[in-house]
Amino acid sequence: MLGSGVFAGALEKDFALAREDREGNRFGDELARIGYDGQQACGQHELDSYFELHIEQGPVLEAEDRWIGIVEGAQGMRWYDLTLEGDAAHAGTTPMGLRRDASLGAAAIILAANALTREIGDGALATTGVIDAHPGSRNTVPSRVFLTVDLRHTRNEALDRMEARLKQLVAEICEEHRLESSLERIWESAPVRFDPGCVAAVREATRQSGHPFREMISGAGHDAVYVSRVAPTAMIFIPCGGGVSHNESESAEPEHVTAGVEVLLRAVLERDRAG
Amino acid sequence: MLGSGVFAGALEKDFALAREDREGNRFGDELARIGYDGQQACGQHELDSYFELHIEQGPVLEAEDRWIGIVEGAQGMRWYDLTLEGDAAHAGTTPMGLRRDASLGAAAIILAANALTREIGDGALATTGVIDAHPGSRNTVPSRVFLTVDLRHTRNEALDRMEARLKQLVAEICEEHRLESSLERIWESAPVRFDPGCVAAVREATRQSGHPFREMISGAGHDAVYVSRVAPTAMIFIPCGGGVSHNESESAEPEHVTAGVEVLLRAVLERDRAG
Repeated sequence: MLGSGVFAGALEKDFALAREDREGNRFGDELARIGYDGQQACGQHELDSYFELHIEQGPVLEAEDRWIGIVEGAQGMRWYDLTLEGDAAHAGTTPMGLRRDASLGAAAIILAANALTREIGDGALATTGVIDAHPGSRNTVPSRVFLTVDLRHTRNEALDRMEARLKQLVAEICEEHRLESSLERIWESAPVRFDPGCVAAVREATRQSGHPFREMISGAGHDAVYVSRVAPTAMIFIPCGGGVSHNESESAEPEHVTAGVEVLLRAVLERDRAG
Repeated sequence: MLGSGVFAGALEKDFALAREDREGNRFGDELARIGYDGQQACGQHELDSYFELHIEQGPVLEAEDRWIGIVEGAQGMRWYDLTLEGDAAHAGTTPMGLRRDASLGAAAIILAANALTREIGDGALATTGVIDAHPGSRNTVPSRVFLTVDLRHTRNEALDRMEARLKQLVAEICEEHRLESSLERIWESAPVRFDPGCVAAVREATRQSGHPFREMISGAGHDAVYVSRVAPTAMIFIPCGGGVSHNESESAEPEHVTAGVEVLLRAVLERDRAG
């Protein structure tokens, strides 16, 4: 979403170009290396509207055997970096009661963030995808654990409550285990409702095509979320195998892809007619 | 403990020479590179007895301001590799109830292993020092988590009970979170009682030196644990700053080092007189 973020004015171009991957390759340098640093300004195009066709990246359409998802909006999401600090200590010589073991705080927070989704309900999601324990030696009590937390909900008010509870849980757990903590929200994307006119165009196009469908809210972030800040926007989903994406085993059936392109074309024509 | 393990016949020489560090450097190659692959056979020396002087690597002597630890034996320890397998899934599109999240199993096991030490008591220790979550992306539910578990106790019977409970806890937690698991004991060192004659020599040497002392069991593994298989053995501990070892901030006071060397010399002379 870097390109669409710059296009929509949500991100600075210099920020985007300075991003580095884990090997330290700079995004701007790599664009130049492969000949993709074009001459046009990013974000100066005028748009009447924006329609994005995408695999669902989730299991719902496949499970219900519906070919088209009419996407009415996108969940909000907030990303956090959390560092817990205790003391490194020898696994054989440090009595349990004298330890400040960062792994115990991390474990308790992972479970508490999971339980928080049941407390909030309404499809609330919480995920810890990165867990780095330092120094990373099997006979040393971890002095520091770095965790990520990803919170999602369709309503901003619920995200506010989730964030407040997360802060409280981290404080309580760190007090219990005598740890220091640093919790930082590093990114957020507010819940989005797509343009009613564009969504109506997708709905009419789906009706014309006759494919089985459902209306839904996107769980993932998409370029459409940023572009919706500068142009009327809607999205179309098609099923994907096992809900898998960002992975070599990502797959979509040719008939679903064809159905999606058909709905996309009809939606654009419908938008043109309505305009 | 590789060298002493080969010396005492507990490890094969070829096994030791084939060990690699994280960068893939082979121990045998590195010995050759720095000129330390000597001509003498390892382990053919005759020993009357073996005395090892070491920092405690723990906080007890420093906390009690005792200069000498008369080490009567060493804890047993068992090392485990544990891999938990679930499914990678998108953090925004996969409902909580459909996830098989390896991080939840890992978190529950870390806390359960910790609680297990209170259940067993008598100074039981459990440590998870390594936690690797895959694929390690903040918006992907971890499909796999690799953990290490280090269990220690002064009695083998207690270690047997800890191992049985660990297996049971892993099975229960993996059933609850619908995960697959692989738990493997990769190394063990049985509890050791050092030679009564050698320990008596250290006790007499400490008495002669007049330094404040205590008797203790080593929490860490040491070369003395392996050498005790082939020769009468005892150890002497001195305090270290904050119990820290295997770390740049490891430190020992000159007067404690001097006291340790004095007790070592007197113990050897005492052993010679007794022999």
